[in-house]
Amino acid sequence: MNDFFKFVENGSITTPQGFRACGVTAGLKASGKADMALIFSEIPANFAGAFTSCLFAAAPVQVDRKRVLDSKFVQAIIVNSGNANACTGRIGLENAEKTCQMTAQKMGLTPDAVMVSSTGRIGVQLNMAKIAKGIELAAAALSNDGGSDAARAIMTTDTVPKTAAVTFTIDGKPVSIGAMTKGAGMISPKMVLPHATMLCYITTDARIENSLLAKMLGIGVDLSFNRITIDNDMSTNDSCIIMANGKSGITIQQNSTNAELFQQALSALLKKLAVAMVKDGEGATKLVNIEIHGAASRVDAEKAAKAVANSMLCKTAWFGGDPNWGRVAAALGYSGAIFEPEKVDVYYNSKPVIKKGQDAGTPEKELAAEMAGREFTIKCNLNAGSVDYNVWTSDLSYEYVKINAEYTT
Amino acid sequence: MNDFFKFVENGSITTPQGFRACGVTAGLKASGKADMALIFSEIPANFAGAFTSCLFAAAPVQVDRKRVLDSKFVQAIIVNSGNANACTGRIGLENAEKTCQMTAQKMGLTPDAVMVSSTGRIGVQLNMAKIAKGIELAAAALSNDGGSDAARAIMTTDTVPKTAAVTFTIDGKPVSIGAMTKGAGMISPKMVLPHATMLCYITTDARIENSLLAKMLGIGVDLSFNRITIDNDMSTNDSCIIMANGKSGITIQQNSTNAELFQQALSALLKKLAVAMVKDGEGATKLVNIEIHGAASRVDAEKAAKAVANSMLCKTAWFGGDPNWGRVAAALGYSGAIFEPEKVDVYYNSKPVIKKGQDAGTPEKELAAEMAGREFTIKCNLNAGSVDYNVWTSDLSYEYVKINAEYTT
Repeated sequence: MNDFFKFVENGSITTPQGFRACGVTAGLKASGKADMALIFSEIPANFAGAFTSCLFAAAPVQVDRKRVLDSKFVQAIIVNSGNANACTGRIGLENAEKTCQMTAQKMGLTPDAVMVSSTGRIGVQLNMAKIAKGIELAAAALSNDGGSDAARAIMTTDTVPKTAAVTFTIDGKPVSIGAMTKGAGMISPKMVLPHATMLCYITTDARIENSLLAKMLGIGVDLSFNRITIDNDMSTNDSCIIMANGKSGITIQQNSTNAELFQQALSALLKKLAVAMVKDGEGATKLVNIEIHGAASRVDAEKAAKAVANSMLCKTAWFGGDPNWGRVAAALGYSGAIFEPEKVDVYYNSKPVIKKGQDAGTPEKELAAEMAGREFTIKCNLNAGSVDYNVWTSDLSYEYVKINAEYTT
Repeated sequence: MNDFFKFVENGSITTPQGFRACGVTAGLKASGKADMALIFSEIPANFAGAFTSCLFAAAPVQVDRKRVLDSKFVQAIIVNSGNANACTGRIGLENAEKTCQMTAQKMGLTPDAVMVSSTGRIGVQLNMAKIAKGIELAAAALSNDGGSDAARAIMTTDTVPKTAAVTFTIDGKPVSIGAMTKGAGMISPKMVLPHATMLCYITTDARIENSLLAKMLGIGVDLSFNRITIDNDMSTNDSCIIMANGKSGITIQQNSTNAELFQQALSALLKKLAVAMVKDGEGATKLVNIEIHGAASRVDAEKAAKAVANSMLCKTAWFGGDPNWGRVAAALGYSGAIFEPEKVDVYYNSKPVIKKGQDAGTPEKELAAEMAGREFTIKCNLNAGSVDYNVWTSDLSYEYVKINAEYTT
């Protein structure tokens, strides 16, 4: 199919008109790597946000939730890595507010036009002198092509920055959507808005009302971050924020054809980044697409896909390149989805593995060959109904254990 | 507290009177290790069973469920390791029935007095010539002290056999309960009777009606196997069967003091074996007791305990000896249990870690010292109610990945 939109080469959050960004080093990371990012819209922007459903929501998440309720527009997002400002009580909350205030002052805004995110170590108070220095540096470093620097500054255990943009034409005018995301561990989003579980920032130069923006973000998240899991752990901090500043001159109205087009482009962009997150998952050597077909309901389809995707036994078998499909069958069987085992078919890519609940007879060597690539699909047809669903997941490697047994900051 | 019962040194399923057992080598395991066990009661025994809730229930599980419905007494259990006889369709089911028939013929029983279990590779048909040979060998090898041989023959990735027995006096007569269990991976029992998820065989020389036996087994499982998880994976095969042959001359009646005593002894025995399973979990270097206190409900307490116990990030931190309590807070937060984060206290053994939702201030070195031992307790007080619950779990090590990336048989 010919998409009406194009991915922009080296596209980022500064691809849409009227956005500037940067990444700077405030000294919060022991490694000395960039650790603060600032995203700035030249004019007030509509916005929507989705946040973690973890009860221990970090201080910046608590501040941002207030913005979603109280602010009509925002203009800046200030982000730090190296410290999550989570489980930090009243002082943590004051520090998150103060971070917004300092950013607002520097940029000539009111504090309620600034959103804030943090990621990194839980339970340690922010070093506010370093935050102040970082804001100072960031305000000076903002640039029209700072998107990729910003993407680097929000990384923790990520090995590559994850950034992309799409562009398309509406009523003869170019419209863009840019996005960046980070997250390689503590990744298992629970996805009903207003919940999300990774850091993701999206910019667009279309004008879209907050309520429509929230609806579109919800649909986009459901088709992307909704469907990924790395380790089945959800974070205290993760946030997904979209800003729409209207600089393109195009306004997207509810229930219009243009809204459908925008939704398609947004969903494709988020899907690309979601898959990139799994590929860069902690210690991941495989990207595995778990496709469930023929489920009796959406709930059943999700349960089945996530049981396989999160099974430690499946994940280690994928790492070992072992076709061991009994582990897939077991996970489907305990998932809670309802189906008749003797009707289930499973394929590794196009090779039949299970036929009517039993060994399909494909030689192990052929199955192992399908799993040898960096990416493969496990397609499960439950033959119990007509609902399809998929989840992208990674394998479980020695490196995952190493990163998480030795990583603290 | 002084228990009224005693653990028997080298106790096993042959400790109770009138039981014989053995372990033999039928050649099902490539390693050449013992792979078939037979448990035999000299007289017909009352019995009860609990089986996996996985929809892909193995053929022997399907046969055993029929026994629970149709038979009043059983007298033998025939078990093989090396092949799970799961996802094997009609032929698999016929092979499981045939295994019972051959055992019955050899032992002079009717087939409905024989139960059957399998564990090992999923999706491969049993080699019935080897099974026949194993039954032949087993019938000849049965002995009054064969309990520990039987426990070895049911091992897969277990590194040690797990067997124990308790003895006590009722109305001046000695009564014993013996048990053996296996399972080091695919361990995350879902515990409502008639569901269980490991192999466990229990013998007693008390006489107890099937219905009371089922009730007692349910309570015992809830306090033991109910509360363990190694990898959050449930098996297609696992089974927990108790036989009561009455050889002690003691009959246990419903709602009696003796029933209470028997229940206490049974629960203690199963708890000991459940903890032994976690200690011998695949690649496990730590036994971690997750205690939840002050939950608003049993459901909340279970959710909170299991979220922490199954968190890959917590499990790797324990392996690394890293106090990283943010991961515990995050898991409690996403567990679905309801509580106020700013009221939560967490301890590693007796050292405070989180106080009112924030860092309790105990130096990291002191916390790391608590985690350095083979066993430690993470005590979480949600301060949201009065319900307590606990789960025993293991850490996630390089060895776990190795075993499961390289293990097929």
